[in-house]
Amino acid sequence: MSASFDALWSDLAPLGRDGTTGGYRRYSWGAADAEARAWFVEAATARGLDVRTDGNGNLWAWWGEPGDDAVVTGSHLDSVPDGGAFDGPLGVVTALAAVDELKRRGVRPRRPLAVTVFVEEEGARFGIPCLGSRLLTRTLSPERAAALSDADGVTWARAMEDAGLDPTGIGPDAALLRRVGVFVELHVEQGRALAPMGRPIGVASAVWPHGRWRMDFTGRADHAGTTRLADRRDPMLPFAETVLAARALAERHDAVATVGKVRVSPNGTNAIPSQVSAWLDARAPEEATLHAVVDGVADSAQRHADAHAVALTHTAESVTPVVDFPHQLRDRLATIVGDPGDPAPVLPTGAGHDAGVLAASVPTAMLFVRNPTGVSHSPEEHANPDDCHAGVTALADVLAELLNGGAG
Amino acid sequence: MSASFDALWSDLAPLGRDGTTGGYRRYSWGAADAEARAWFVEAATARGLDVRTDGNGNLWAWWGEPGDDAVVTGSHLDSVPDGGAFDGPLGVVTALAAVDELKRRGVRPRRPLAVTVFVEEEGARFGIPCLGSRLLTRTLSPERAAALSDADGVTWARAMEDAGLDPTGIGPDAALLRRVGVFVELHVEQGRALAPMGRPIGVASAVWPHGRWRMDFTGRADHAGTTRLADRRDPMLPFAETVLAARALAERHDAVATVGKVRVSPNGTNAIPSQVSAWLDARAPEEATLHAVVDGVADSAQRHADAHAVALTHTAESVTPVVDFPHQLRDRLATIVGDPGDPAPVLPTGAGHDAGVLAASVPTAMLFVRNPTGVSHSPEEHANPDDCHAGVTALADVLAELLNGGAG
Repeated sequence: MSASFDALWSDLAPLGRDGTTGGYRRYSWGAADAEARAWFVEAATARGLDVRTDGNGNLWAWWGEPGDDAVVTGSHLDSVPDGGAFDGPLGVVTALAAVDELKRRGVRPRRPLAVTVFVEEEGARFGIPCLGSRLLTRTLSPERAAALSDADGVTWARAMEDAGLDPTGIGPDAALLRRVGVFVELHVEQGRALAPMGRPIGVASAVWPHGRWRMDFTGRADHAGTTRLADRRDPMLPFAETVLAARALAERHDAVATVGKVRVSPNGTNAIPSQVSAWLDARAPEEATLHAVVDGVADSAQRHADAHAVALTHTAESVTPVVDFPHQLRDRLATIVGDPGDPAPVLPTGAGHDAGVLAASVPTAMLFVRNPTGVSHSPEEHANPDDCHAGVTALADVLAELLNGGAG
Repeated sequence: MSASFDALWSDLAPLGRDGTTGGYRRYSWGAADAEARAWFVEAATARGLDVRTDGNGNLWAWWGEPGDDAVVTGSHLDSVPDGGAFDGPLGVVTALAAVDELKRRGVRPRRPLAVTVFVEEEGARFGIPCLGSRLLTRTLSPERAAALSDADGVTWARAMEDAGLDPTGIGPDAALLRRVGVFVELHVEQGRALAPMGRPIGVASAVWPHGRWRMDFTGRADHAGTTRLADRRDPMLPFAETVLAARALAERHDAVATVGKVRVSPNGTNAIPSQVSAWLDARAPEEATLHAVVDGVADSAQRHADAHAVALTHTAESVTPVVDFPHQLRDRLATIVGDPGDPAPVLPTGAGHDAGVLAASVPTAMLFVRNPTGVSHSPEEHANPDDCHAGVTALADVLAELLNGGAG
């Protein structure tokens, strides 16, 4: 089992890794993404799995005939810019290694099993996270997807076509979704709750409500050396005020808020910017709290934009309500992973996942593998090999029970 | 005269103009720059001028034999990102049109005349403004130029070579510089001092001391959804504080300070940045004031970086002391452009120019053409055709007097 995990991991690890930063740059439909997908197809096929691509480009590797009431597990292979090695890939590699482990144990599934790879989970290229699972489940309409484009103006359909896929099937697939009896996603922990408990594996309770909002501050380009301060319409100033307001509001409400992405035009040293675009990522335990933060940021941005004669547009790019994973399934997994007297810890997460999107349509659960530093979305993201191996065992235990135990 | 200006202007105007923004993107040694340089060579050659390229890539179009005690006039053709049509090109086009006007008047120069195009005046590609004139005058060493590279890592010498030029001659050229008896640069006014006076042409008194400083805030990339606020080392926060501090300090000291260029890594919506790099442009009437502003910004940046466990490096990329143009030459030009009883207005400027760099080596003066809105470094930058034609007349008057009048 651990040898199988290690071999899979070391084959995947170099793909899309930047030589300078050590971070991953696997963006949907790009060259590194194609390599990672080809790795998956080869690894799954080598295990006798039947790999199919759905209309949205998500990969499904079936053990035996595709059929109803399937047990499905998997994650994603795309990354944020300079992301870590584990966020996504750990769930995919663990799923394949768990199949090997089930075979080693001689498990003969009474339900179909599929290992999945969902596309554009991070939203790094097209701005909407969990795009593959949102399209599958109609959480996002194909019309909205058709309007998406990347920073170079390449549309989602065109990028898919350039990667050699047929974009005509983009959209919901009720028949495929109906086959999913239960979905389990294993993921590296993001944050640091398991380490202080001394536990390698946890089970998800809920995903915090969260979203991303775009703010475009439009002023007037002008010469930085000759334009009097009073005559300026400098969008950098209300932008800076908004960054600080977001932090202050998050602190006040026990939420998190981040401005991690900014675009400045024309971005010249001696030119007052004509436009600053900024993206707010905000998350909170409760939806009311989230909206208090986001509304407060919008109010602050508008007030400071007005003060500088700068125009502001504010757009919700994606908003995900709270996801409470079904309690019965969650508690069952906690017992399988731990034992009845000492179940695995059950934890909420501030991170969005395909499991959170699928939870609205099918019974869904998540397993977390301990992250000793809590660092994620960074080249420094890490999980210990022993914990990864414990993840394979835990996932194999869960799959075995779901495949041949009681109702899933 | 005006027909000559208009024809030259309309030939040059489309080169490097972006179809969407209407702004110019003429970056040193790029395709648009090559087109603009080719336009100059053709226009100068058509006038019987002898075009030579110096070791740094600056163009010199000589009327008659190159020789000592020359009268030199010109400006630059490169632009800031999405810059206006006039900043730079107005001085070049006016110079060529003034040569036509001198010929029309039958002027026979007793001194050599050259029309120049200096490279990388804006510093938009390699970060150092007035690079061509700085290299010529050894204000910048060839060693420092050799270390410069653009955002893609292309060095100055390599970019020059890619544009078909020989980079082995980069550096000071004392022999060429010795030939310059006097340099006059005509430029569109940046700011709005002439319009309220009802005057189309002004003469420069001084260039404010100014510079650009780079600040690199280095924190730690992390997941925007799962990292507690207290655990973050988010460089966006001290950066935002610094933007606001720069504005407040500039207001307090009657200076100007601008953060117009920012680079965020990895620049992902759901990733706390690992690094934010920002460029401060600051200018003031007095050097002591400039340093008070810049030191205040650096202190504020350091204090806020420390508060967020973010590292800060602070680098002066270019600092230009105050330039006081020689008073006798300045007053002579004001009298030529106006008349002895009503000389042209004499104005300081916050903008750097090649004339400001050359002023340390040779007698130098500047003429300004009225800017009705004061907007510059923007697609909206404008000068009225009548004022441009007045600029040609003024420059021709000045050149005629310098060529054949008293000592320059």
